[in-house]
Amino acid sequence: MADVENGEALPSIEIARKVLAAQPFSALLGARLVAFGDGKATLELDIRDDLRQQNGFLHGGVLAYAADNALTFAAGTVAGANLVTSGFTIDYLRPAVGATLRARAHVVRAGRTRVVCQCELSTVGPDGLETLCAVAQGTIAVPVSS
Amino acid sequence: MADVENGEALPSIEIARKVLAAQPFSALLGARLVAFGDGKATLELDIRDDLRQQNGFLHGGVLAYAADNALTFAAGTVAGANLVTSGFTIDYLRPAVGATLRARAHVVRAGRTRVVCQCELSTVGPDGLETLCAVAQGTIAVPVSS
Amino acid sequence: MADVENGEALPSIEIARKVLAAQPFSALLGARLVAFGDGKATLELDIRDDLRQQNGFLHGGVLAYAADNALTFAAGTVAGANLVTSGFTIDYLRPAVGATLRARAHVVRAGRTRVVCQCELSTVGPDGLETLCAVAQGTIAVPVSS
Amino acid sequence: MADVENGEALPSIEIARKVLAAQPFSALLGARLVAFGDGKATLELDIRDDLRQQNGFLHGGVLAYAADNALTFAAGTVAGANLVTSGFTIDYLRPAVGATLRARAHVVRAGRTRVVCQCELSTVGPDGLETLCAVAQGTIAVPVSS
Repeated sequence: MADVENGEALPSIEIARKVLAAQPFSALLGARLVAFGDGKATLELDIRDDLRQQNGFLHGGVLAYAADNALTFAAGTVAGANLVTSGFTIDYLRPAVGATLRARAHVVRAGRTRVVCQCELSTVGPDGLETLCAVAQGTIAVPVSS
Repeated sequence: MADVENGEALPSIEIARKVLAAQPFSALLGARLVAFGDGKATLELDIRDDLRQQNGFLHGGVLAYAADNALTFAAGTVAGANLVTSGFTIDYLRPAVGATLRARAHVVRAGRTRVVCQCELSTVGPDGLETLCAVAQGTIAVPVSS
Repeated sequence: MADVENGEALPSIEIARKVLAAQPFSALLGARLVAFGDGKATLELDIRDDLRQQNGFLHGGVLAYAADNALTFAAGTVAGANLVTSGFTIDYLRPAVGATLRARAHVVRAGRTRVVCQCELSTVGPDGLETLCAVAQGTIAVPVSS
Repeated sequence: MADVENGEALPSIEIARKVLAAQPFSALLGARLVAFGDGKATLELDIRDDLRQQNGFLHGGVLAYAADNALTFAAGTVAGANLVTSGFTIDYLRPAVGATLRARAHVVRAGRTRVVCQCELSTVGPDGLETLCAVAQGTIAVPVSS
């Protein structure tokens, strides 16, 4: 099993799902971790009515939540479970409508103290087709033991 | 009453609160609009247990939601209620702990087609003292009638 | 020839190179437009000694310039030559060393009033191998005729 | 004299000016450090003709350079001279015209491993009046000795 630099084993998807389950806010939103490994993580959630804004679209705050969390889980695949999100940028592309939100994030560069990731946020229609509705880029800090 | 360029009257705090109340996701999170006018808007929400992450801190996704919404409401004070968030950047400064989250946003520059705003996100302790825990900067698009 | 929505023909690489040549700052830095079309643009410049910072690496400001300009030219391939950069985010990944800087940008989503693009900034070694040293994401405004 | 956590003395404005002078790219652009201390740094440069874009305005890349460098120098006032810019976001507000560009940056939060700063970029007219033309927010990494 691959190890991170400090000797901690890289988390499995089972471990990562326990972390997600331990986040009450992720439980409130119904987020699911559907892929995790090799620098990539995918989160999904059902677009429930209570996640919308005033025009019936998915609220931008839900997209921002999904971006934040997917970016951090992607970093977790290469840098361990004990990470802190430093910050991120999100650009909204079109109103988010559909049954499911899918956030796919991947590592762009994993350094010793921080990991830069990008994320594509799409809605998935009943036919399985994805419509890209936002993109995000962020930095996750790797705690330094000293 | 001041008018925006297209002749629409600027929204009052009562109108803005109706917009917030019409956002199911804001209702889910318990967000309140406590100030609105003159290029500034302040949102607050109680830091409930179901808004936390796995270490007991307020989830970054809640901070991102509050930044997104406060930035857009601040823009609304000068550009009308019919706005679309283009995107924003958030930098987390420290773990968010406390009883209340307060997001204060202000307009930096209102152009004809977009408004740039900044936001300070603080937690408020029982003594009323604020601790800054994140800052955000974003752009809100003003729909063009054409 | 494809047309943009307002009837203006999309610029050719020859037109785009004239725009670049008309930017005195791009001339000062020696930027070249090496690809332009179909939602993509690539800028290159030689990493001259007068473009470095105090440790001998390419200055971050040069990377930021290249990101800004490549993002805008990529948008220009789909939205015409008359564009205004709204803003962008850049994350530095590693020190930039090498003979040439290459900035590849592509359109993520072209809307009616704004275009969102991403850019990869790499240095190119004598063997032609690229080393990714920064990534950027930005928004370019399409002027509205009214 | 105040010390940073690792025992290194905080740099004086004289030391900081030597760092700036050691950046060939800053020399090429004619940047001057006019204030430095207590969490704040101000850079200025003359808006020469060779720093413009095709419409006669200051090139966005010059604004981005000034933001990058001012953010890093502001961080340097509290975290020492040996810093690395992680990344930043810039939003352009209006075309930059005038005789001088002034970039004022300040520390928002200085942590042990990274410093978050904001920057206001203004042009200065012959009467000394400032016109805000861009705002930036960025993160500077503090190297960890380990």
